[in-house]
Amino acid sequence: MNQTYPSQLLENAVNEFSKLPGIGRKTALRLVLHLLRQEENEVFDFSEAIVKLKNEVKYCKVCHNISDTEICSICAHPARDRQTVCVVENIKDVMVIENTLQFKGLYHVLGGIISPMDGIGPGNLEIDSLVKRIPEENIKEVILALSATMEGDTTNFYIFRKLAAFKDLKISVIARGVSIGDELEYADEITLGRSIINRTLFNESFKSN
Amino acid sequence: MNQTYPSQLLENAVNEFSKLPGIGRKTALRLVLHLLRQEENEVFDFSEAIVKLKNEVKYCKVCHNISDTEICSICAHPARDRQTVCVVENIKDVMVIENTLQFKGLYHVLGGIISPMDGIGPGNLEIDSLVKRIPEENIKEVILALSATMEGDTTNFYIFRKLAAFKDLKISVIARGVSIGDELEYADEITLGRSIINRTLFNESFKSN
Repeated sequence: MNQTYPSQLLENAVNEFSKLPGIGRKTALRLVLHLLRQEENEVFDFSEAIVKLKNEVKYCKVCHNISDTEICSICAHPARDRQTVCVVENIKDVMVIENTLQFKGLYHVLGGIISPMDGIGPGNLEIDSLVKRIPEENIKEVILALSATMEGDTTNFYIFRKLAAFKDLKISVIARGVSIGDELEYADEITLGRSIINRTLFNESFKSN
Repeated sequence: MNQTYPSQLLENAVNEFSKLPGIGRKTALRLVLHLLRQEENEVFDFSEAIVKLKNEVKYCKVCHNISDTEICSICAHPARDRQTVCVVENIKDVMVIENTLQFKGLYHVLGGIISPMDGIGPGNLEIDSLVKRIPEENIKEVILALSATMEGDTTNFYIFRKLAAFKDLKISVIARGVSIGDELEYADEITLGRSIINRTLFNESFKSN
């Protein structure tokens, strides 16, 4: 249904909000009317926070994670294990892994995964800079933590080939298996098959990092 | 779980987004990261649309609907029935009723409904201005189109009392009844009871406005 708006300004704001992922025109209108009910300075703060983020945000020169400084707080942290690098697709994945508190090494954010369908090739990703880091930073292990999808596997394989030249480098992939809390009968066959092949020793499965 | 953000700017933007109704911190992060991937001018347009709306929007001097001009497009429209006024709670209700294409009169936006729980009394609403409009604009009918809630009924009753002094004024309330498409057995008893009391003649129920 084609909604008519009583105000062009209102319509513009609704249009902008409905460009956001998962926000339809009805939700957009609700959000805009909510903002309209707020004090002027609150609306200004909202708008300011977004523009400021876009204008002032930096990306870490080493790992390409989002950062307020030239080198991000993870790369600059003195207590992190500087010889292990975890390769992830994007900023959000860094946050997700950091939240597990199970990884004390550094990261490398690719900025995407190889996806010919979306026109993303290896050249669009931070793969060359990853290769350069290995000798420069004397890295001993690269952990590939990409999505368990076709694109993730392709990217894993591409990186594996690129890093094969470093003879002493350990290259690992995060474990695939049945999620904790999942019932076995509902796990898909491929995952279940993989989790049997990659089974771990009983005592080792409870070891923390 | 307390998420740590790699950037203060990112955290600020997420905080602002998560103040919006129905937007949690996870969704806020998703929206902010989406904006971050857009071109600078697109992010600026987004932010500009909101600030502009807040700074420049006007409210119609007659009906208090949102408007780009002193008098809104509905009040200024030459073909509308100027003797019938539909009283609604807010701007959104005007849009909803306009979308039905069943009402050709004018509106009066109260800006809320009487709700002692939220500290909203009659004095906070545009009720006095409604009372003034009746003789000034020679209005013949007021249609009360508020929510079918306790607060809506209270407000209806308050307005009814205020307007009782105008002897020739017709005061009506929108019909309450079983929704079109609803099965009878799932309608609640109060609605069903009301729809029996307020039954319409069979030939009249198909009449359009």
